[in-house]
Amino acid sequence: MTSTPKGKEVQAGKLYGVGLGPGDPDLITRKAARLIETAKVIAYPTLAGSDSFARAIAVDLIPADVREIVMDVPMSVERGPAQSAYDAGAAAIAAALENGDDVVCLCEGDPFFYGSFMYLHARLSERFVCEVVPGVTSVTACAARAAMPLAARNERVTILPGPLPEEELRSRIEGAESVVIMKVGRHLEKIRQVIDALGLTHDATYVERATLPDEIVLPLSEAPETAPYFSMILLTKGADPWL
Amino acid sequence: MTSTPKGKEVQAGKLYGVGLGPGDPDLITRKAARLIETAKVIAYPTLAGSDSFARAIAVDLIPADVREIVMDVPMSVERGPAQSAYDAGAAAIAAALENGDDVVCLCEGDPFFYGSFMYLHARLSERFVCEVVPGVTSVTACAARAAMPLAARNERVTILPGPLPEEELRSRIEGAESVVIMKVGRHLEKIRQVIDALGLTHDATYVERATLPDEIVLPLSEAPETAPYFSMILLTKGADPWL
Repeated sequence: MTSTPKGKEVQAGKLYGVGLGPGDPDLITRKAARLIETAKVIAYPTLAGSDSFARAIAVDLIPADVREIVMDVPMSVERGPAQSAYDAGAAAIAAALENGDDVVCLCEGDPFFYGSFMYLHARLSERFVCEVVPGVTSVTACAARAAMPLAARNERVTILPGPLPEEELRSRIEGAESVVIMKVGRHLEKIRQVIDALGLTHDATYVERATLPDEIVLPLSEAPETAPYFSMILLTKGADPWL
Repeated sequence: MTSTPKGKEVQAGKLYGVGLGPGDPDLITRKAARLIETAKVIAYPTLAGSDSFARAIAVDLIPADVREIVMDVPMSVERGPAQSAYDAGAAAIAAALENGDDVVCLCEGDPFFYGSFMYLHARLSERFVCEVVPGVTSVTACAARAAMPLAARNERVTILPGPLPEEELRSRIEGAESVVIMKVGRHLEKIRQVIDALGLTHDATYVERATLPDEIVLPLSEAPETAPYFSMILLTKGADPWL
């Protein structure tokens, strides 16, 4: 129970971190859809004033009279400005929760898989009831769109962010079976060279904006020169799909 | 176009591999739900005559008059008997597709992430149009239920099947950041010893039947003596969720 400014006690609202999947609104789960359709308050981050991808995925479900808490995160190498943006967002969300409203945080993919929701979770989950609704990740969405099974039986899967240093990417890929390289973006050329040096280009598939209308799926050898942030490389060294 | 026994040409049906998520029917995607609700033919494997978990997840969506193709996979260390079961299932599915019906294959989790659908995909995807609908995996569902963020920023994620040999589990966990150990089941004691020897028990969470009514989430040190097949251990070595 918390107290409102008028002194009336209200039951605090619940914080939801809701995964929306890789981009196709049809890949939103039934639970996420229902939470958004009935939301009074939604929240999401934007990057340096650009549009929110999470909001775009959910747009057809968002009620017209919803209140929107937008956390605009500035572009910066320093962590301080982004931390301040999440501090301010968490304070606005906390105020809504204390007022008795549930708050639905929109997250592309899955909230706990490279998602910014974990910054809100860290700031709020000890004070408020919090539920994370998992979503379809870009990892399995890319595998589906590329028609490439990721792992069977006792195979291992290694997930590596593209910004990792070249030497680390090389050693991690060398000892792995199925490899998923996330956040390719401006690291495409470096990753391409690592994969080429390992002689694995033939096994590599490039996927950009999986499940969206402008999706691209290509052998890595035919990938474009530049890649957006939401791009991925899948490497499989010959899983045996015949059982 | 294919020919029916009566010589009439029909457009062949489409094969769908549909991920149903970790168990809570509410975590089925809107696309998967629609495909199942409108299906004329569904298909799924069962293990040695036991009930199908995938079918149980989707049961409220399955039309009353649907045709069901059941592939009963025998328990066997040899691969031959299981291969025969998938051969026979693929033949029955192919006959339905040639007859012009779409076939919706039900898959727990995601079809291409340790899913048996890939055995059907290998047998049928060159002859028929095939679409894989990705689903929420148990990996992010377990993280959500355990309230443990899996990975942020440039962190790596390693996914290891529990049946791997002790020495391989040890070396893979040693060099990793976030670790997800799938299919714990009867390998629980071995895995527990590996994690203990590495001094990581404090960072380990045990999750059984995530998102189902009888779900269990416990520190590994308090996990039960025996684990079902659908259980998992999450290991995180201190992600920094504060950004």
